[in-house]
Amino acid sequence: MKDTAPKKDGITRKPFPNSKKIYVSGEIHPEISVAMREIALTDTTDSLTGNKIPNESVVVYDTSGPYSDPSKDIDIHQGIERIREEWTLKRGDVERLDKFSSDYCNERLKDSSLDHLRFDLKTRPLKAKEGMNVSQMHYALKGNITPEMEYVAIRENQKIDEMTRLFEQHKGEDFGASIPKKITAEFVRDEIARGRAVLPSNINHPEAEPMIIGRNFLVKINANIGNSATTSSIEEEVEKAVWACRWGADNIMDLSTGDNIHETREWIIRNSPVPVGTVPIYQALEKVNGVAEDLTWEIFRDTLIEQAEQGVDYFTIHAGVRLRYVPMTAKRITGIVSRGGSIMAKWCLAHHTESFLYTHFEDICKIMKAYDVAFSLGDGLRPGCIADANDEAQFAELETLGELTKIARKHEVQTFIEGPGHVPMHMIKENMEKQIEVCDEAPFYTLGPLTTDIAPGYDHITSGIGAAMIGWYGCAMLCYVTPKEHLGLPNKEDVRVGVITYKLAAHAADLAKGHPGAQHRDDALSKARFEFRWEDQFNLALDPERAREYHDETLPAQGAKIAHFCSMCGPKFCSMKISQEVRDFAAENEIVNDEVIAKGMEEKSKEFVEKGSKVYL
Amino acid sequence: MKDTAPKKDGITRKPFPNSKKIYVSGEIHPEISVAMREIALTDTTDSLTGNKIPNESVVVYDTSGPYSDPSKDIDIHQGIERIREEWTLKRGDVERLDKFSSDYCNERLKDSSLDHLRFDLKTRPLKAKEGMNVSQMHYALKGNITPEMEYVAIRENQKIDEMTRLFEQHKGEDFGASIPKKITAEFVRDEIARGRAVLPSNINHPEAEPMIIGRNFLVKINANIGNSATTSSIEEEVEKAVWACRWGADNIMDLSTGDNIHETREWIIRNSPVPVGTVPIYQALEKVNGVAEDLTWEIFRDTLIEQAEQGVDYFTIHAGVRLRYVPMTAKRITGIVSRGGSIMAKWCLAHHTESFLYTHFEDICKIMKAYDVAFSLGDGLRPGCIADANDEAQFAELETLGELTKIARKHEVQTFIEGPGHVPMHMIKENMEKQIEVCDEAPFYTLGPLTTDIAPGYDHITSGIGAAMIGWYGCAMLCYVTPKEHLGLPNKEDVRVGVITYKLAAHAADLAKGHPGAQHRDDALSKARFEFRWEDQFNLALDPERAREYHDETLPAQGAKIAHFCSMCGPKFCSMKISQEVRDFAAENEIVNDEVIAKGMEEKSKEFVEKGSKVYL
Repeated sequence: MKDTAPKKDGITRKPFPNSKKIYVSGEIHPEISVAMREIALTDTTDSLTGNKIPNESVVVYDTSGPYSDPSKDIDIHQGIERIREEWTLKRGDVERLDKFSSDYCNERLKDSSLDHLRFDLKTRPLKAKEGMNVSQMHYALKGNITPEMEYVAIRENQKIDEMTRLFEQHKGEDFGASIPKKITAEFVRDEIARGRAVLPSNINHPEAEPMIIGRNFLVKINANIGNSATTSSIEEEVEKAVWACRWGADNIMDLSTGDNIHETREWIIRNSPVPVGTVPIYQALEKVNGVAEDLTWEIFRDTLIEQAEQGVDYFTIHAGVRLRYVPMTAKRITGIVSRGGSIMAKWCLAHHTESFLYTHFEDICKIMKAYDVAFSLGDGLRPGCIADANDEAQFAELETLGELTKIARKHEVQTFIEGPGHVPMHMIKENMEKQIEVCDEAPFYTLGPLTTDIAPGYDHITSGIGAAMIGWYGCAMLCYVTPKEHLGLPNKEDVRVGVITYKLAAHAADLAKGHPGAQHRDDALSKARFEFRWEDQFNLALDPERAREYHDETLPAQGAKIAHFCSMCGPKFCSMKISQEVRDFAAENEIVNDEVIAKGMEEKSKEFVEKGSKVYL
Repeated sequence: MKDTAPKKDGITRKPFPNSKKIYVSGEIHPEISVAMREIALTDTTDSLTGNKIPNESVVVYDTSGPYSDPSKDIDIHQGIERIREEWTLKRGDVERLDKFSSDYCNERLKDSSLDHLRFDLKTRPLKAKEGMNVSQMHYALKGNITPEMEYVAIRENQKIDEMTRLFEQHKGEDFGASIPKKITAEFVRDEIARGRAVLPSNINHPEAEPMIIGRNFLVKINANIGNSATTSSIEEEVEKAVWACRWGADNIMDLSTGDNIHETREWIIRNSPVPVGTVPIYQALEKVNGVAEDLTWEIFRDTLIEQAEQGVDYFTIHAGVRLRYVPMTAKRITGIVSRGGSIMAKWCLAHHTESFLYTHFEDICKIMKAYDVAFSLGDGLRPGCIADANDEAQFAELETLGELTKIARKHEVQTFIEGPGHVPMHMIKENMEKQIEVCDEAPFYTLGPLTTDIAPGYDHITSGIGAAMIGWYGCAMLCYVTPKEHLGLPNKEDVRVGVITYKLAAHAADLAKGHPGAQHRDDALSKARFEFRWEDQFNLALDPERAREYHDETLPAQGAKIAHFCSMCGPKFCSMKISQEVRDFAAENEIVNDEVIAKGMEEKSKEFVEKGSKVYL
């Protein structure tokens, strides 16, 4: 099962209900075409006059790529459109290689026993010309606004500045972030130059639509996919990637650890409309048959190049797990729970020497900037339970990550920092504050954190609580957790639930920070809810299908979709219905404040009683 | 379907895995017998010596009542054991009535067409003797420690003070709450006397096991059940009540609005091991055929007495919806979303007069203290969307609730306060702070709050985020929200998911507040997780069945339940496994800190390499 190429038609392509894909051009770079989703709404019926009042459509941030656009032909055996390729080539600082630079990669390509499952590559990889740096940070520091930067500026605004606001937005509390009212390309450039935002964009992953990670932008989420020794096929993983993007994943990480991970990754990257991250040490370990002590810098280096030339956009590198931190974990309840961290800890102990990731960090930087791979500096010593939260080991490693951030910046390599893990609510803020200080505002990327240990099977929720909070405090990206966390590998339904949970957590954070326009979709949905525009309520939801399905369960009839009440209370008890009457009464009688009531209400109460009989149709 | 008595064997009675019910006696009142659940654990195998080391069993707070005790005979046609009846009678301040005091109730009892679905009552109701006050607050103010008070003191401690702590507990941040290291009966009395805690205990609901609501105690959760005009039967509702308690509901509210709600309520109360709350205005509205304007104080009063004599432990009363606040809601996006609130708003507008709940508040107090029904002062003007959060209408009503709290206290009636609703994260704390101040620390009881509006189908999660946060800030009880919120009526599976979500949110809050012993179960579960004691991990989980089911999905074989790795990473990549080696190495070599390493590690690294081959069995 695992050893086959995916079927051509195995991919979910259904468009979203009552939605169309729109594309917005750039001003600085007219050639860019920023994908968004526009949700059309039905009219409001004025309850007094019966007149129809149109509702403006709502444009939402869209991570689903070309898959949700029925006008696009997609053949996953060809890969999706390479939208960024021309932008990269035009800069003139890259060259196309004759062959891959990784020995391992070239061996795999020569192995004819893999032909039947291999993605049929049409091109050879790009690499920076000798001595050149092709990172977005490098361009930003030179003052260049790239097409990628303008793309994300347009994308972040979601056209909300052009829409009629339904309601005044709450101000928010942003803990020192400084989100402008409108995101400009210049602001994007400046944030990247400052190291406060990362725009993952490997020159060998031209299929990815640009997106940005930073605390002055919308909070992003990541979905982990990938097969393991015990389960799943290439086809399933490609579909999981597309599926995760459909529900809202801004990034995916391919954490495959089984066989054929090189080939699996190729299929995923060629078909992923979002940046793809990996943990290269996993594959390196496979190459030494799982014996951590046998890892070498040379094997790891070849793996980095192999993956960089495939198009991986960011690498998790656990270079902060230093030899002397390892004993700090011995008295923990759950020791080291990061796979990469534990591999490196073992290597360090076995060799009694400093981690090669740490000692070769500058060599790694040189590879990163030749392809624009971003660092996701791994938190190998993150706490794996409430008891271990915010301990000496965790914060010691964070100090080292701060030190490495400085080195990466010297090389103008984009960098963000991974964070925990399991942390009780009252200790979350300290994580964010320390990270901002120690890593000089480099974006933070956390796994949850999980706020209790006692809910296996529901850890998307225990961690969604922590994720929303740390997103509010300033965390730039949230790595999702699925209901299967600690128990098994997520299936497609788990991926969906994990992504939606994190999307809502990220959105809760955007609201709390007062991100401009974040409240627009909430207001539109709430207005639809109040007016019993059920279809609009479903269509504006993060998961329209699930919302509709739940409504169908109690009131399946089509008529119920236009009913002026719902199954919770039935017609007599509907507060929304009664409330509409209160509003109509107030509107008709121009009641706007206390004084007016005091004067005018008495004589008008009779009128209300007379109309009272009309209330329940 | 609705018009039948429930089947005798339709109730879930399965005990929890590897658990036994234990009963702890009182010291002041030896006759009390506090139910808890003790989860037995398997031994730890020392990874160096292979020796078996026993793990202490874990005792947890148990809301499931007699249903999870296989030694108890239960016949829901008889009702469960009336454990509190003797305690009440012994106090000598109550009398047994010859007949019910409510006209409506007596009519229903005479109606032979209802015989087939009626619970067969064995007794007539109790009422305070003329001029007496039977509220726990009254006893507390007199300095009496009742059996109920000692019961909850023992229950809150969960025997954790007697257990060996696995790990030092995090200190917590409790925002001015003052939770003692050990809860004493005297502390319980004092908190109730102070009005800072409520022990719901209607003298006519002797079946309920005492529990306490207050911010110096464990955070509690409520599950709403009840049929509506469009769905469900008595049998389903009784099973939902028992089912909700099984998963952790500390209270249930019966929000039935359909036919036969008097009879449905009787079945629920007689079989509920937790306090039961209602919103009496719902039934009053049924009595006037759904025409809010036709409501009268007399009908409402009869309904209060009817329900008080059935044994309802607390009433939601929307007495804070005053005439002059109603126009403040006219410009909201979602107006008034509370059913009770909208009914009263309509009544006020139609009659152009102050709400009878407000004008008759002292009369209501007199009824409450004759049965010890607690007030849950309803937030009829709570916000129904993010845009409406913390607005003028909401806080105006809160001021009135504060005023009513003082009146209730004058009558020595137990009182807690309901809160929102839909509130973005950054505006949650203000709700808690204002409520504490305005209502002089009366317990707060909130619905969520939901932190975004855009996730129908996942609103247990959007609200679970807000619930955990407000619980941390000091909210005493969290009203659950199920995945069906805004879309339909919850089925049994929704009730389970809603209860577990809120149980984990409440627990996250207990951890963050530093509630003594809250971390004990987390530590035990994390230790089991680290040691691959899968069965113990499942059994310690809030939902053991779901945890096991998810594990089975990927690795169904029994062998996998003792495997030293899991399906996520497979044997090679298991961080827990590698981490255990690190710990063993450290233990064997007595590595405890940096200095020791610097001195001793080099020579020991060889030894580790030699042992390295043994790692993967």
